Amino acid sequence: MSSIYAELLERVQAETPLVHHITNYVTVNDCANITLAIGASPIMADAIEEAGEIAAMASSLVLNIGTLNSRTIESMLVAGKAANEKGVPVVFGPVGAGASNLRNGAIKRIMDDVKVSVICGNISEIRYVSGLDATTRGVDAHENDATGDPGLIACELAKKLGCVVAITGAADSVSNGQRTIRIENGHSALSKITGTGCMCSSLLGSFCGAAPDKPLDAAVAALLCMGVAGEIAFEKAGLLGGGSYRTAILDAVSKLDAGTLERRAMYHEARN
Amino acid sequence: MSSIYAELLERVQAETPLVHHITNYVTVNDCANITLAIGASPIMADAIEEAGEIAAMASSLVLNIGTLNSRTIESMLVAGKAANEKGVPVVFGPVGAGASNLRNGAIKRIMDDVKVSVICGNISEIRYVSGLDATTRGVDAHENDATGDPGLIACELAKKLGCVVAITGAADSVSNGQRTIRIENGHSALSKITGTGCMCSSLLGSFCGAAPDKPLDAAVAALLCMGVAGEIAFEKAGLLGGGSYRTAILDAVSKLDAGTLERRAMYHEARN
Amino acid sequence: MSSIYAELLERVQAETPLVHHITNYVTVNDCANITLAIGASPIMADAIEEAGEIAAMASSLVLNIGTLNSRTIESMLVAGKAANEKGVPVVFGPVGAGASNLRNGAIKRIMDDVKVSVICGNISEIRYVSGLDATTRGVDAHENDATGDPGLIACELAKKLGCVVAITGAADSVSNGQRTIRIENGHSALSKITGTGCMCSSLLGSFCGAAPDKPLDAAVAALLCMGVAGEIAFEKAGLLGGGSYRTAILDAVSKLDAGTLERRAMYHEARN
Repeated sequence: MSSIYAELLERVQAETPLVHHITNYVTVNDCANITLAIGASPIMADAIEEAGEIAAMASSLVLNIGTLNSRTIESMLVAGKAANEKGVPVVFGPVGAGASNLRNGAIKRIMDDVKVSVICGNISEIRYVSGLDATTRGVDAHENDATGDPGLIACELAKKLGCVVAITGAADSVSNGQRTIRIENGHSALSKITGTGCMCSSLLGSFCGAAPDKPLDAAVAALLCMGVAGEIAFEKAGLLGGGSYRTAILDAVSKLDAGTLERRAMYHEARN
Repeated sequence: MSSIYAELLERVQAETPLVHHITNYVTVNDCANITLAIGASPIMADAIEEAGEIAAMASSLVLNIGTLNSRTIESMLVAGKAANEKGVPVVFGPVGAGASNLRNGAIKRIMDDVKVSVICGNISEIRYVSGLDATTRGVDAHENDATGDPGLIACELAKKLGCVVAITGAADSVSNGQRTIRIENGHSALSKITGTGCMCSSLLGSFCGAAPDKPLDAAVAALLCMGVAGEIAFEKAGLLGGGSYRTAILDAVSKLDAGTLERRAMYHEARN
Repeated sequence: MSSIYAELLERVQAETPLVHHITNYVTVNDCANITLAIGASPIMADAIEEAGEIAAMASSLVLNIGTLNSRTIESMLVAGKAANEKGVPVVFGPVGAGASNLRNGAIKRIMDDVKVSVICGNISEIRYVSGLDATTRGVDAHENDATGDPGLIACELAKKLGCVVAITGAADSVSNGQRTIRIENGHSALSKITGTGCMCSSLLGSFCGAAPDKPLDAAVAALLCMGVAGEIAFEKAGLLGGGSYRTAILDAVSKLDAGTLERRAMYHEARN
């Protein structure tokens, strides 16, 4: 008797969804590797001349504005619209929301013009997108923003936007506006290496690609995988330091099976 | 009594050829590291204002269209022509051939305007370049394309283009149109981490830089090194997962010596 | 009784300075990871529309021309000027100085228009910036340039430019024109993996962000950390090869504490 999340992991591994990324150049290699590790297939393509064509044939599209520029913003819009036309689910990571007018304007344009299936960010980013006070300082969550119930914030934003909202943090909260799931897996060491947020987006893309009609379940499954892998990796290599921990995360994702996910997953549904 | 391939490895290590890359931002760090690991020196430079100048002073030029855009396509053409003028060998990786009109057009322009020494890709990419039916879905080889004899396909394309053609896969095939070599080294796990195809291109650049007059031998040597390193790495760390395997590949390349290459190399010449 | 360098390490770890990078796409992931590993927070942002805004709110700015292009050169100038206006220290890495007219012109423009706190490069790069003969071949130091006393070269350039000059190599030399420190830590294996120079720039940014009024001490502390981490990493994993060594460097930086730095630091002041 296995959960929908374990079943979705097996579906990703069986179907090898093609995940089109337009993402930042800082963590793009980690994104490609984690996409392969979970069993999907990554393609990175950000030229406006091909962004729509690739998005239309992909199983899902991941948009991440970590190192956006005027060229790639336009490509994201073209890709997002092409994905929408074909019913390809779009995952959006508003990296560094609030940190600059360029980012804020790009977020507004993407949210206005593209129907997003899942939006995923840390609490500072999601607070900004929600129109709440947010203390933005770079791309990491700010301690000032650790107020309020993330589950409620995710739920409210999900209702407002009509999509799934995922807030990553010590615990993750995922909501579609009706149901809100809190995930207790993960490890604090995940915040000490770069790319773990971006890798979450890649896993979200992988699961949404395999289950485009189940964005809430797909999002929970993706964050469970990241959380469980973060724990297994810490047990194996966390005390060695950040380099070994990062390697061990990819190891853990590539070795993750439905049974392990089922056994280690810790989540519960919040009463909204 | 050592083979030409072992001798070429020693030549790379002795001469430290400078390998100019215009390549994708997904795997560029892996490319730089494997170039250093084999004993060569990488330089990545894609601005059109310097691409020709750098290519002209390099030992070889690697062009890889994994994340091409309109700016870098022009830089590749400038660099390729400058390399041709100076007799600097050019290695070309038509990544994602067939996946978009932009890629297909760029491949045509590069093949038309630049004399390439070695073209290297997976079977789907080389089938596309050869004008054969190809099932393109992203940047990975498609199982539908595992028909036909890769050695024959490589040989035919090599004759047609007048260059060396290398097809990577479970076994690799390398041909200059007269002689065709089949390489049995490697491991299936190589396809589960990103960048192994791109790293092959970097090794091809390193060997062609040390032996510009011997592109067939250089190409075979490069793919033997990747294959042998892939095997050694799997023995050391493959069961740990994708992250450790990737680390172990760089370890194996950096520790590879002529004797080990000689002892482990498995190849034979095909009868065309 | 601890040195200023150990104190500065504790200050970085306590204050988490925000280090804005405009850097190359080859080693940017290593830069982000080492910034997190030392205890600071990285942000990479190279769009001209946000470069000034991000630089102005950062604790320090790192400019690295490893893969410069006409777009990012302008962003570096905008960011550098914004940093200067706010008193945010600027670290500059003239990667590949001498290798192309584009690089040489960009270096001149940055040195002319931006007040740099620390300039850091290998001996070939710093010789070029100093107007001395330099044998440039790519981005690695050339053996021909291993003549002359690096401490004297650093001191002379520091006097001329009115900033701190750091020359990395088998031993590192750091000078502000009055005092010159020679650092004996490090390991030759550091030159066999990509990004160690760029990672030095990130550590320089981290320390300058925590001690903007002490650029000489900050620079010495940063290079001591890199050198000591390079030694510890080699003891742990150097014999395994380049991949493991690279992982071990991030491990060592993330585990480095003031006591270890104090105990292992080897430096002395040169008599100018």
